[in-house]
Amino acid sequence: MSRLLALTALRRSVLGTSNPATAQALSAARAPQPGVALSIPTPRSTAVSRCFSGKTARAGGFHKGLLVGAAALVGVTVAGFGFRRNQALMVSKSPSDREQQHALDEILQKCNHFMSDPVTDINKLLENKDDMRTKMELLIMEIQADVCKALAEVEDSQVFKVDRWQREEGGGGISCVLQDGKVFEKAGVNVSVVFGNLSEDAAKQMRSRGKTLKSKDGKLPFCAMGVSSVIHAKNPHIPTIHFNYRYFEIEEGDGQKTWWFGGGTDLTPTYLNKDDAVHFHKTLKEACDKHDRSYYPAFKKWCDNYFVIKHRGERRGVGGIFFDDLDTPSAEELFKFVRSCAQAVVPCYVPIVKKHVHDSFTPEQKAWQQLRRGRYVEFNLIYDRGTKFGLATPGSRIESILMSLPLTARWEYMHNPAKGTREAEILEVLKTPKDWAR
Amino acid sequence: MSRLLALTALRRSVLGTSNPATAQALSAARAPQPGVALSIPTPRSTAVSRCFSGKTARAGGFHKGLLVGAAALVGVTVAGFGFRRNQALMVSKSPSDREQQHALDEILQKCNHFMSDPVTDINKLLENKDDMRTKMELLIMEIQADVCKALAEVEDSQVFKVDRWQREEGGGGISCVLQDGKVFEKAGVNVSVVFGNLSEDAAKQMRSRGKTLKSKDGKLPFCAMGVSSVIHAKNPHIPTIHFNYRYFEIEEGDGQKTWWFGGGTDLTPTYLNKDDAVHFHKTLKEACDKHDRSYYPAFKKWCDNYFVIKHRGERRGVGGIFFDDLDTPSAEELFKFVRSCAQAVVPCYVPIVKKHVHDSFTPEQKAWQQLRRGRYVEFNLIYDRGTKFGLATPGSRIESILMSLPLTARWEYMHNPAKGTREAEILEVLKTPKDWAR
Repeated sequence: MSRLLALTALRRSVLGTSNPATAQALSAARAPQPGVALSIPTPRSTAVSRCFSGKTARAGGFHKGLLVGAAALVGVTVAGFGFRRNQALMVSKSPSDREQQHALDEILQKCNHFMSDPVTDINKLLENKDDMRTKMELLIMEIQADVCKALAEVEDSQVFKVDRWQREEGGGGISCVLQDGKVFEKAGVNVSVVFGNLSEDAAKQMRSRGKTLKSKDGKLPFCAMGVSSVIHAKNPHIPTIHFNYRYFEIEEGDGQKTWWFGGGTDLTPTYLNKDDAVHFHKTLKEACDKHDRSYYPAFKKWCDNYFVIKHRGERRGVGGIFFDDLDTPSAEELFKFVRSCAQAVVPCYVPIVKKHVHDSFTPEQKAWQQLRRGRYVEFNLIYDRGTKFGLATPGSRIESILMSLPLTARWEYMHNPAKGTREAEILEVLKTPKDWAR
Repeated sequence: MSRLLALTALRRSVLGTSNPATAQALSAARAPQPGVALSIPTPRSTAVSRCFSGKTARAGGFHKGLLVGAAALVGVTVAGFGFRRNQALMVSKSPSDREQQHALDEILQKCNHFMSDPVTDINKLLENKDDMRTKMELLIMEIQADVCKALAEVEDSQVFKVDRWQREEGGGGISCVLQDGKVFEKAGVNVSVVFGNLSEDAAKQMRSRGKTLKSKDGKLPFCAMGVSSVIHAKNPHIPTIHFNYRYFEIEEGDGQKTWWFGGGTDLTPTYLNKDDAVHFHKTLKEACDKHDRSYYPAFKKWCDNYFVIKHRGERRGVGGIFFDDLDTPSAEELFKFVRSCAQAVVPCYVPIVKKHVHDSFTPEQKAWQQLRRGRYVEFNLIYDRGTKFGLATPGSRIESILMSLPLTARWEYMHNPAKGTREAEILEVLKTPKDWAR
């Protein structure tokens, strides 16, 4: 049997027209990620081992019926994940073919390191490899994998539970959660790629600058994708980090496409450690400065003004960077900027985790951490636009949205730390943000 | 010295024109409540021992300057709290005077059992004894005291911390909180009487039926008062109760006064106990049936539809009654109905507490309780109109609003109880409300 015929046979099995056992065997042949295990799928989610079934074709629901067409366009690459190794052996004939082949192989190589197959069908990604949607999806998948692996290395024993989920209305996501580990109380790194028609509520939440979007027959087709993460450690001397990098596209009634990027990384310590705050901010500043020296000061300020628990008159933490609705100078430039920021997550946070992982702490310090966790919950449920957008988007996966909540939290009536304590020290900083990267 | 002269001298001390020590001594002479201790005041709040200072005159800020006038009108009763006992000795001359005297004495007698002086200056209450505002304030103070005393009796050792607080914009409240007791994890019973001009956000939150209120120069003078309580017990077999009874008045631009009553009582068990649910609902039904047999079925349904954690597809608990915006048949009739409901709180809940106070429980049952506490937090911070109204009202006392939050809560990613367990049993009831009072 020629290679082409063999691949066609395999493709059939992938599409569910052949022996399902073959597809499963191919799926199982995928190289495991170091320090990362794929968990048993829960009833609501579709695990990686199932993503080679016929259902996968529905993951990229907005190109229904395109699969066969896509297969024709990308030729032998249609078989996707299971065939990466074979793929690398293929040799194209002309230089432009070779170039094309190389680009496709590069994407497949990338995918090999992800926590799971991307949300969008691999054929669709290969077919539209130069689209911003594709680039962004590959970036958020890469960041998810990088962060999970870095945390798994610190955690040593505990691994991430990986859940793939699909959204009936369009799209889906991959949630990676490590819960009740040795080092981490709860660490969630979530990728989602959702599309469909924007609800009015969601449209309101999505855009901070309040631009009125022109709908057609009340419909606003949209695509939103991002990587979002909150990492709560057990030790109260290890701060909580949150990051989120996202890309939106909205098709307006007049056919115009509106798009923008948003994102940010911010740190929430239980106790103030100035060196940590400086390291964190300086790493973010470096990432920003590579692109525009006005970014860091502007986005640091935006962060200080966004993560505010208004009713408490406190910020959530020592800040970081935050931005939204960015659509200049160009999508390409902004993508590179967002990539730098997202790639700065591991270097800005993991050294802090490693530094404090063996710090001793008292029960009182643990109790103070729990109270601060309560404040974190208040911000997330009352003010966070991401949470509001998620809850307002029909078909959202609640478990993925609310994985940002800590494992445990505490509320004490009228808790006021005494002057001069370390608890009062951090409260002071939460009331008056400092310039850490000076 | 004649009694009148003596009272005048005392009155001077109350108004801050005499030796403050005298006023303090009078204040201290107030009979302590059984099972209830007044705590040391916190910096933000004005404790009972301070309510005899000149500041008290400001508590009822909307009648600024009226104090002396009120004193003249109500004659020798002006001295307020400190003189209740003396007051009872006064004998008026004419029958109508005697009747008047009797009504005033009755109010003062009532006040003697409260957890603290009412929010509104006693002179103002006496002066306007037939106003709905006065009647309602006295009712909510009475309910606060009844509930606190019933809980203190069960708790045995632990007592309530009583905080009086004032709102700069007008009004204030009394928060009674028992925290980390033997039986109760957190029990808060809060009275508030606030007034001023309604913010637009608050106006939106206040009225579920969406009636547009006509403002004058953008101002909507309002008065809102109520008693609000959440009681979380330690033992997972004791359910959480919430109740809230409130009265609103809004003065519209055209001079018309809009008013309404709202309220409800609902139960949130960690585990289903059918007998408890039946007892709870039957007690509420009896209270409703005394006034209108259509009330219970209508308000039971309203409750089932209101306490919904939409994003989870669950109700918060086994329901109870809930109503809002009631303004027919008459204020007087509705007041009596609200009083019956509020007076049903102790009989519908305390027997359940007593029944389960010594029930044994496993660490797993405690963990399930903590997860359910997490859901309680989600409802309160995301959906609860009272919380939203509070957070949207400038100058609100956050500690009193958020005292409804449990001491501790937990969020586990993808927690799904196995079929046939008691955890699955309660989830089923939260998804499909039952008719308990049949």
